[in-house]
Amino acid sequence: MDILTDGAVQSWGEGLPPWVCLDDMLRSWIAEDLGRGDVTTQALLGNSARSGEAVWIAKADGVIAGLPIAERLYHLIDPAVQIVCEVCDGEFCPVGTTIARFRGSLASLLMGERVALNTVMHLSGIATETRAYVDLLADLPVSLVDTRKTTPGLRVVEKYASRVAGAINHRLGLDDAVMLKDNHIQAAGGIEPAMTRVQRRIPYPLAIEIETENLEQVETALLAGADIIMLDNMPIALMKQAVAIVRHNVRPVKLEASGNITLETIRAVAQTGVDYISTSAPITRSPWLDISMRFC
Amino acid sequence: MDILTDGAVQSWGEGLPPWVCLDDMLRSWIAEDLGRGDVTTQALLGNSARSGEAVWIAKADGVIAGLPIAERLYHLIDPAVQIVCEVCDGEFCPVGTTIARFRGSLASLLMGERVALNTVMHLSGIATETRAYVDLLADLPVSLVDTRKTTPGLRVVEKYASRVAGAINHRLGLDDAVMLKDNHIQAAGGIEPAMTRVQRRIPYPLAIEIETENLEQVETALLAGADIIMLDNMPIALMKQAVAIVRHNVRPVKLEASGNITLETIRAVAQTGVDYISTSAPITRSPWLDISMRFC
Amino acid sequence: MDILTDGAVQSWGEGLPPWVCLDDMLRSWIAEDLGRGDVTTQALLGNSARSGEAVWIAKADGVIAGLPIAERLYHLIDPAVQIVCEVCDGEFCPVGTTIARFRGSLASLLMGERVALNTVMHLSGIATETRAYVDLLADLPVSLVDTRKTTPGLRVVEKYASRVAGAINHRLGLDDAVMLKDNHIQAAGGIEPAMTRVQRRIPYPLAIEIETENLEQVETALLAGADIIMLDNMPIALMKQAVAIVRHNVRPVKLEASGNITLETIRAVAQTGVDYISTSAPITRSPWLDISMRFC
Amino acid sequence: MDILTDGAVQSWGEGLPPWVCLDDMLRSWIAEDLGRGDVTTQALLGNSARSGEAVWIAKADGVIAGLPIAERLYHLIDPAVQIVCEVCDGEFCPVGTTIARFRGSLASLLMGERVALNTVMHLSGIATETRAYVDLLADLPVSLVDTRKTTPGLRVVEKYASRVAGAINHRLGLDDAVMLKDNHIQAAGGIEPAMTRVQRRIPYPLAIEIETENLEQVETALLAGADIIMLDNMPIALMKQAVAIVRHNVRPVKLEASGNITLETIRAVAQTGVDYISTSAPITRSPWLDISMRFC
Amino acid sequence: MDILTDGAVQSWGEGLPPWVCLDDMLRSWIAEDLGRGDVTTQALLGNSARSGEAVWIAKADGVIAGLPIAERLYHLIDPAVQIVCEVCDGEFCPVGTTIARFRGSLASLLMGERVALNTVMHLSGIATETRAYVDLLADLPVSLVDTRKTTPGLRVVEKYASRVAGAINHRLGLDDAVMLKDNHIQAAGGIEPAMTRVQRRIPYPLAIEIETENLEQVETALLAGADIIMLDNMPIALMKQAVAIVRHNVRPVKLEASGNITLETIRAVAQTGVDYISTSAPITRSPWLDISMRFC
Amino acid sequence: MDILTDGAVQSWGEGLPPWVCLDDMLRSWIAEDLGRGDVTTQALLGNSARSGEAVWIAKADGVIAGLPIAERLYHLIDPAVQIVCEVCDGEFCPVGTTIARFRGSLASLLMGERVALNTVMHLSGIATETRAYVDLLADLPVSLVDTRKTTPGLRVVEKYASRVAGAINHRLGLDDAVMLKDNHIQAAGGIEPAMTRVQRRIPYPLAIEIETENLEQVETALLAGADIIMLDNMPIALMKQAVAIVRHNVRPVKLEASGNITLETIRAVAQTGVDYISTSAPITRSPWLDISMRFC
Repeated sequence: MDILTDGAVQSWGEGLPPWVCLDDMLRSWIAEDLGRGDVTTQALLGNSARSGEAVWIAKADGVIAGLPIAERLYHLIDPAVQIVCEVCDGEFCPVGTTIARFRGSLASLLMGERVALNTVMHLSGIATETRAYVDLLADLPVSLVDTRKTTPGLRVVEKYASRVAGAINHRLGLDDAVMLKDNHIQAAGGIEPAMTRVQRRIPYPLAIEIETENLEQVETALLAGADIIMLDNMPIALMKQAVAIVRHNVRPVKLEASGNITLETIRAVAQTGVDYISTSAPITRSPWLDISMRFC
Repeated sequence: MDILTDGAVQSWGEGLPPWVCLDDMLRSWIAEDLGRGDVTTQALLGNSARSGEAVWIAKADGVIAGLPIAERLYHLIDPAVQIVCEVCDGEFCPVGTTIARFRGSLASLLMGERVALNTVMHLSGIATETRAYVDLLADLPVSLVDTRKTTPGLRVVEKYASRVAGAINHRLGLDDAVMLKDNHIQAAGGIEPAMTRVQRRIPYPLAIEIETENLEQVETALLAGADIIMLDNMPIALMKQAVAIVRHNVRPVKLEASGNITLETIRAVAQTGVDYISTSAPITRSPWLDISMRFC
Repeated sequence: MDILTDGAVQSWGEGLPPWVCLDDMLRSWIAEDLGRGDVTTQALLGNSARSGEAVWIAKADGVIAGLPIAERLYHLIDPAVQIVCEVCDGEFCPVGTTIARFRGSLASLLMGERVALNTVMHLSGIATETRAYVDLLADLPVSLVDTRKTTPGLRVVEKYASRVAGAINHRLGLDDAVMLKDNHIQAAGGIEPAMTRVQRRIPYPLAIEIETENLEQVETALLAGADIIMLDNMPIALMKQAVAIVRHNVRPVKLEASGNITLETIRAVAQTGVDYISTSAPITRSPWLDISMRFC
Repeated sequence: MDILTDGAVQSWGEGLPPWVCLDDMLRSWIAEDLGRGDVTTQALLGNSARSGEAVWIAKADGVIAGLPIAERLYHLIDPAVQIVCEVCDGEFCPVGTTIARFRGSLASLLMGERVALNTVMHLSGIATETRAYVDLLADLPVSLVDTRKTTPGLRVVEKYASRVAGAINHRLGLDDAVMLKDNHIQAAGGIEPAMTRVQRRIPYPLAIEIETENLEQVETALLAGADIIMLDNMPIALMKQAVAIVRHNVRPVKLEASGNITLETIRAVAQTGVDYISTSAPITRSPWLDISMRFC
Repeated sequence: MDILTDGAVQSWGEGLPPWVCLDDMLRSWIAEDLGRGDVTTQALLGNSARSGEAVWIAKADGVIAGLPIAERLYHLIDPAVQIVCEVCDGEFCPVGTTIARFRGSLASLLMGERVALNTVMHLSGIATETRAYVDLLADLPVSLVDTRKTTPGLRVVEKYASRVAGAINHRLGLDDAVMLKDNHIQAAGGIEPAMTRVQRRIPYPLAIEIETENLEQVETALLAGADIIMLDNMPIALMKQAVAIVRHNVRPVKLEASGNITLETIRAVAQTGVDYISTSAPITRSPWLDISMRFC
Repeated sequence: MDILTDGAVQSWGEGLPPWVCLDDMLRSWIAEDLGRGDVTTQALLGNSARSGEAVWIAKADGVIAGLPIAERLYHLIDPAVQIVCEVCDGEFCPVGTTIARFRGSLASLLMGERVALNTVMHLSGIATETRAYVDLLADLPVSLVDTRKTTPGLRVVEKYASRVAGAINHRLGLDDAVMLKDNHIQAAGGIEPAMTRVQRRIPYPLAIEIETENLEQVETALLAGADIIMLDNMPIALMKQAVAIVRHNVRPVKLEASGNITLETIRAVAQTGVDYISTSAPITRSPWLDISMRFC
């Protein structure tokens, strides 16, 4: 039996780096809230081994993301806290769903409550909004992708939330793909000299994407050897022409539509035949999903 | 002339800690985007001292926040970049406003673009939404306060954005005030034993806030010596009764209303006579303010 | 059974933040002593699993503080070291008392000896001196508090030592209470404008303390709404007058005496009726408590 | 005048990330050598502002790499040290060449000597060996590329040295390209299911490289949509057949030869028609270039 | 003119490592006090460029240490603060001496006050006490040395204070000299096997010190090739005999007396003829030197 | 039974500091390779608990070094990975030797492969070359020592590799021994004033080594009290004279030969009678030892 038919799904599955790569960040989040200590909890419960139980309940419909991170946050505070996730990251939960159960030292449960909830509420807000877009594209051969508009410090986890909700990530930073924009092209004296220069100097597996705003730029980008062509803020009709031009070419080139993508406009864009539609909205415009922690 | 009549306003003014306290975080934000380097910019411009100019333009109406942080981010990348802010943090900018002007190495301007914009767009989104709430309270003797629901890692700057927009901060962490909630009180066997225990063990200047859900709890909290009483999710009528009870008391106690505060409901809550209204909405539910960087 | 009647006392009880908040500091202490390695121990014992046992013996009378930190230091070096504390932090130990027993790899026991002892000897010195002051106030309704005069880098643990010995902490940093001193007041043009400005800009639960040196300042501070009034270096008679003025006021205000507090003068100060007496002496003037580690 | 005709060449040009991304590493290198201080220099020169001058002289023929890093190391120790580089990174220097001139506090010059020299000697060793390979390929349409076999902690700077000597970088880590090896393919149940799974889950601009050892695998990889096919340890004749198969395909695919590349074998490999030849030898098997610092 | 006759004395002179090695520690000290910001100063002065002046005045007789560190602390908070030291580290200052003058932003002066003063008061306390011991040995061919009993985290600066006051440092950590104590010797089966084993495994320039408690051990240590012999807690008469034995030997061996050294006993110990007398008292038992900051 | 006859050998034995001192470095090595995650492995295996087994096989004859570090690297990624080392650090392995066996999550095994192998291949290269030198000196009373020419960031582990192969370490940094070179001596106005100055200011157990190039300098160094005299780049005949001079002296002084040491010249140098021969070649000129990881 190979992994593809492997029924077991772990929440870690959608690809977070190992904790050794994330722990410093998680520790800084805990320290941010605790500062010099949780004065309330320590004053009341410091001396006591009193244990407690709690559950997380969805207070609104939404797609959950971040549970393994919440679990890790608690384990960094207190390795003895036990957590059972009742749902998986990426799962839709109607209001009232029991998301996870916690058991352990009452003091630890209280100390980690806010940082763990903040993480999952924020990421689930992103996942919920992402899923709304993804669902609109379900029957079309096009993928939703995110952007580099992410909250400073949180890119890896916000892009993870985007992924568990069904989107595909665009580049994660300035070092894993080349994007030639107006200013780059102008600085190099045109698309062709820019491409020549770039191809000689970047890690060779990296793809080169060129931003275009009209058909002339699309054609130039195509000839210059772009791996990906971004159609930026083009009207639908123009986009269709751009797709036709590119598909006519024998070399396969990926097409990405970008700019002013909303839940209202996305299907029309998708139907132009592009491969990818990128939008920052699910990360930059989504409200947190409301979740509450109830102690039993 | 004392500082109170001092006309000059610097954007640093609303109180960020000195950069020495923030630089590690800002450096991690830069590293997050740059990773092993900006392959595009370095390939195209590495060898050139070519300089550039750019402006930031508001693409929507909003209240700006985070400009000094954007400036610091650029200076950490390249101390020679020159930035002139045309507006101050906390200022309302109609769409089309020129927010800031940048001059320096074109490579540096390009490398810092995303992280600086992400910071200011996120914080300005918070400031814009906060201002909407604050404006509704302008004629009433009540203050808007934020909560500990903040994006992990960003509390100090998100609370700063809240402040420049006119809100007052609630506690910044678990160590600068005591908040007794249900679970604390239950664990201690009641409000009174909880208060006794806490007062003996916390740094003595710290205030003690007690969460209440009904009038009986309000009265108990009052007797027990609470410095602040939170009226949590109370109906307006009940809130008014709670205010009356507390104001009748000779010892001054601060009253905070909390729970389901929206732009629609906030004035009614404010008119109950509470001192503070706390809501996480401007931080957890606000979309980013759209700003674009245009190279000249 | 609630926690207040809970007989079990853990040494962690008086309120250290979770280890996740302290480990970086503890690791830096270990690295400071070990540097590139314990050349002696590694040369002699590197290849051997030889185990050892040791005890800590008090070489002088004193109050112990820091045992949980010593335990954590050892566990960071070697999680397999077993430690049994025979006394609790805050307990008075006559000379000769066996404080703790250690069992584990002889190499680990030797490597951690100095850093663990240095920590506990320093903190126990503080606890011992603090207790001397606290004992003098045992029958009076006044509390001993510490100050921000603490060894750079050690504030959280030195204030912890102060607490286990019976003192109450004053603010832990510049961010958990406001203290208006001469220079602040002068810069603002007086107490009243200072108070107005501060109240609008600080996290609202934070208390405001005003330093006073004469009765006129006490009265102004009282009227201006100070939460705490510090009587700084006042003669006993003047202090009594200040107490009378403040107690006459209907609004409860906390009174703190400060300046030249010694074991000789503290009772007289206490008897003026102030609520708190602050002194840095137990932290800045106490010798370490002598403790030795004996290998069995 | 655009950047492509821009005569000025700065040593920073080949693309190091901004110092803000590297300084922590450089500081740790300095700390590694200085530890608790340079006891010799501090004892002799601590009190003196005595200045000095020094030069770096090549003690063997070689290609220089790392001068901007050496300069930064010195500036982190003492911003007042002045350095004039007489050659650029990537330049060949015959034995006896004056590489750089230093002027500043004698104490600072002495403290930074070893760490700065170690850096440049190591990186220049890599650049020198890389250039030997690159020169052999100068007339052929094939590029030399490096691998992930790099000294732990030094990847960014070793790959930079590789670049300044004329090689092109392969991926810089596990996150900027996909490489499917035997074990991956076997775990997924074959190349096709592996490709399907990967394409749905990785950032979409990332290229997918597949390792092949025979013609059957080459054909399968081609059909499965590989962006890059690696011919691993194939005999020259087999490699030529593989090239023919791939070039026959209408979709452009990059071909990389790998395995047992030496200065003796590389031209034969290059003449098979592959696009890239990867070898770790210049990084893992090159001796340091000898450089000495002479004080004037 | 060589450095030995160089009149200029900088406060940096006694040998602190370059700031690049200390800045992380200093930044953590600042962060410890400022936390999320100096709420008082920021609320009052945030918007104002108001400048101020201040002086540091000795409130007791003492030897100053730590001024360059205080200066660096201020410069990390605000590079524009100007500081003129009126005395040098190691200088004796009678009560009332003006130690340093500060000019700069009033806000910066206030923010750094406590951390800078705490540093200098603590280190000056150590220097003052150290000087008392050193003065007693001035006419004898013996040096005072410190120990590894130092406040966790502060070893480098406390040993610096010890040095500016005239003591000589003992080893700074477990890695710059070997010390064979009882437990080491017992574990190795005697002094000779311990020496054999150690000499083969440590960096060869490192000295080996052996702790002895009686004449037999002294003789064994001498024969085994110890570089330094510590006479631990020996009565004066015994110490004299030990000195005689060691001096009789043709190989020069350094002799260190240790244990229960006080201002009363030190001269008698010194007169036994040992080379070094080690004591932790100036670091572990000295009260801070009182210094106040007065704003002008 | 004492440790010297203790048969059990642990790989930790040759003296690495405890992991708490090395983990930050190891974590940075892992992060360097993984970056934002292992996209290949996570995409293919993220959801699966599939386990795997692998072995490390020597692809060339060599001396192994670094296995405990490889084990730690894996445990930082995944504590559940099980590793059995079939050889010990310092052991010679002919080509084909099975070095270690790994069992655990297949994903973890793949993620750590490169960083673990890079570490051991690099360190084993050093150990193999070191052993070649050491073997040539086996019958002579002289020891091979390393230098401060080490790869930036790797000194502790490269010196460890040197040690397991039979060399003895020279000083590990600028703080554990004094080395007076030309420039130091000249700055001080001669060897004697340099010695006077240094002896008064360094930690007293530290040895002082003086670099000499001719017999006159040897004699001056001897008289001035050097603990170690380095004969730098002297012809064999001159070296013999220097040895004779130094051995004639009653005070034992260690003699170190340095400069242009090769496998061809080292025996002649050794036969001059010096105590130590230092060379950087095994660290700066050795190729990595080839090792491959085979999955079963």
